[in-house]
Amino acid sequence: MDPLTYRAAGVDTAAGDEAVRLIAPHAASTRRPEVLGGIGAFAAFCQIPAGYTEPVLVSSTDGVGTKLKIAFLADRHDTVGIDLVAMGVNDLLVHGAEPLYFLDYLAVHRVDPRRIEAIVAGIAEGCRRAHCALVGGETAELGDLYAPGEYDLAGFAVGVAEKKRLITGAEVRTGDRILGLGSSGLHSNGYTLARKALLERLGLAIGDAIPGVGRSLADELLEPTRIYVKPVLDLLRQAPVHAMAHITGGGITGNLPRVLPEGCAAVIDAAAWPVPPIFSAVQAAARVSDEEMRRTFNMGLGFLIVVAAADAAPARRRLEGAGERVFEVGEIRAGARGVQYV
Amino acid sequence: MDPLTYRAAGVDTAAGDEAVRLIAPHAASTRRPEVLGGIGAFAAFCQIPAGYTEPVLVSSTDGVGTKLKIAFLADRHDTVGIDLVAMGVNDLLVHGAEPLYFLDYLAVHRVDPRRIEAIVAGIAEGCRRAHCALVGGETAELGDLYAPGEYDLAGFAVGVAEKKRLITGAEVRTGDRILGLGSSGLHSNGYTLARKALLERLGLAIGDAIPGVGRSLADELLEPTRIYVKPVLDLLRQAPVHAMAHITGGGITGNLPRVLPEGCAAVIDAAAWPVPPIFSAVQAAARVSDEEMRRTFNMGLGFLIVVAAADAAPARRRLEGAGERVFEVGEIRAGARGVQYV
Repeated sequence: MDPLTYRAAGVDTAAGDEAVRLIAPHAASTRRPEVLGGIGAFAAFCQIPAGYTEPVLVSSTDGVGTKLKIAFLADRHDTVGIDLVAMGVNDLLVHGAEPLYFLDYLAVHRVDPRRIEAIVAGIAEGCRRAHCALVGGETAELGDLYAPGEYDLAGFAVGVAEKKRLITGAEVRTGDRILGLGSSGLHSNGYTLARKALLERLGLAIGDAIPGVGRSLADELLEPTRIYVKPVLDLLRQAPVHAMAHITGGGITGNLPRVLPEGCAAVIDAAAWPVPPIFSAVQAAARVSDEEMRRTFNMGLGFLIVVAAADAAPARRRLEGAGERVFEVGEIRAGARGVQYV
Repeated sequence: MDPLTYRAAGVDTAAGDEAVRLIAPHAASTRRPEVLGGIGAFAAFCQIPAGYTEPVLVSSTDGVGTKLKIAFLADRHDTVGIDLVAMGVNDLLVHGAEPLYFLDYLAVHRVDPRRIEAIVAGIAEGCRRAHCALVGGETAELGDLYAPGEYDLAGFAVGVAEKKRLITGAEVRTGDRILGLGSSGLHSNGYTLARKALLERLGLAIGDAIPGVGRSLADELLEPTRIYVKPVLDLLRQAPVHAMAHITGGGITGNLPRVLPEGCAAVIDAAAWPVPPIFSAVQAAARVSDEEMRRTFNMGLGFLIVVAAADAAPARRRLEGAGERVFEVGEIRAGARGVQYV
């Protein structure tokens, strides 16, 4: 990692230099052997890992959304970077890609080197969890665009997959089983509704316990998005997977159909897994329907995996062995592409 | 290009769907054969172009900075996307990389499909100028983070270079000549100072002519950043280049040393090229020193190329033949790494 690829633009030089200096060891902690360091100052450099015959680059960009507003209220900035990486790498993972490297764009009202260090420490933690290298980024001071104390974050994840092993959903068949991996909470979606429900409707303050949840609003709503890279890549080395879905905005309802072929309906047994209490708390306060909840939130499942019926039990055991909470939540039936809850 | 990889998150569904629909043909116009379409919904897919023995991925991320504020004032949104692409691909070009694909992150106060189309049309225009494919992006509606009518943009560019042909600056020798390629104006840096000088100090309105420039503030300050990809890649196929620099924030003073080896000073003849009138207008209004101007603005040169003395004249002719304005602006001498103006 050449620290110069981590630039601070439009920034008071001393503060920008200090931020770049504080960031460097965090970025260095994510290093992978494919990354070429010290060879150039304007960009980041990465080779394709050995062993790919026909490598395909798989890329995604995403932000954290208004989860950031909770970080501002709690003045806690070292976890949203984990969310940022999770949103990108879990997307790559859907297609069977191995995350390779990550870049971030951080726009702030004013450069506070210690805060920037905290944000990037979170990004680096996410990168370590995903086995991908933080190779560069841009920190922009845009005092006229962001309110004092606020910032926005965007991330770019690049992974690689063998062309013939790309997972596209084309292999999905009726009778396939759907496994759900437990989420760590809201992940990074639905925060506009959740904030309205908990902060406005219930009038909770950031440090207050959420009724029925037993944790403070800050702790529960800043819980980092789970990164499924290691257990899922491990599974892919062992067993055929027909499709996967990262459950983000739109919930299972909106995301699972994106990888289903025409003529395949996903039938989900809504009682097959325990919905974590945060979702019930939000629903009670927001007074929205089950349907609305299910197309806004992950409802406790952050990632879905579709496998042949015969592969479901071994896949489940393997994922559980890697530390995941796994639920068999439904199956594929003939029908219009979409999700039905039973 | 699978339009589903272009997502609109946290967005009123109808407006988001409309934006994605309007964006699709613009993205499709940038297609390269290496991009794999229609194979997956959560990410974008690209192969390495044929002919590389040891390909290195070269990546950069950047934003447009407060040039956006001029776009807001002028209510003109179809050019900042060109700047966004330029900032990324000119960085890749410094190292001799061929731009391959691009992703954007667009965060808005509220989704206005027609405005988003204009912004992405600019990004697609930039991608066509750079021969790179717009493969995906994220549009996030963050009404609590951005003021009404405002937005931020981040871009992510990926290119590829043959490992043995990466340009790092290590080949720079005393006696080398420095060629400067004309800029199209401020490009995307120095807007905080320029806005203060022209809008506040001079009290100009967005439609007013800038004294001595002969164009309106909107026209001059929204002139898109020049993209040097085609002429420079053409030059690299013909002649050895020792180093290049993309002149962004920090000016020649800040950017050229980033690619110089220890013991190499760049001596720049400040009279060797005509400084465009916009820089004089900003300097007169802001009352800042030549030194301050030179480490804030490109001063009329958007890209520098360092070549052996014997290669300077043929390189210049080749670049001029490709339509560039080219100036021989200095040379490399023994000395502390840095820039001296004479």
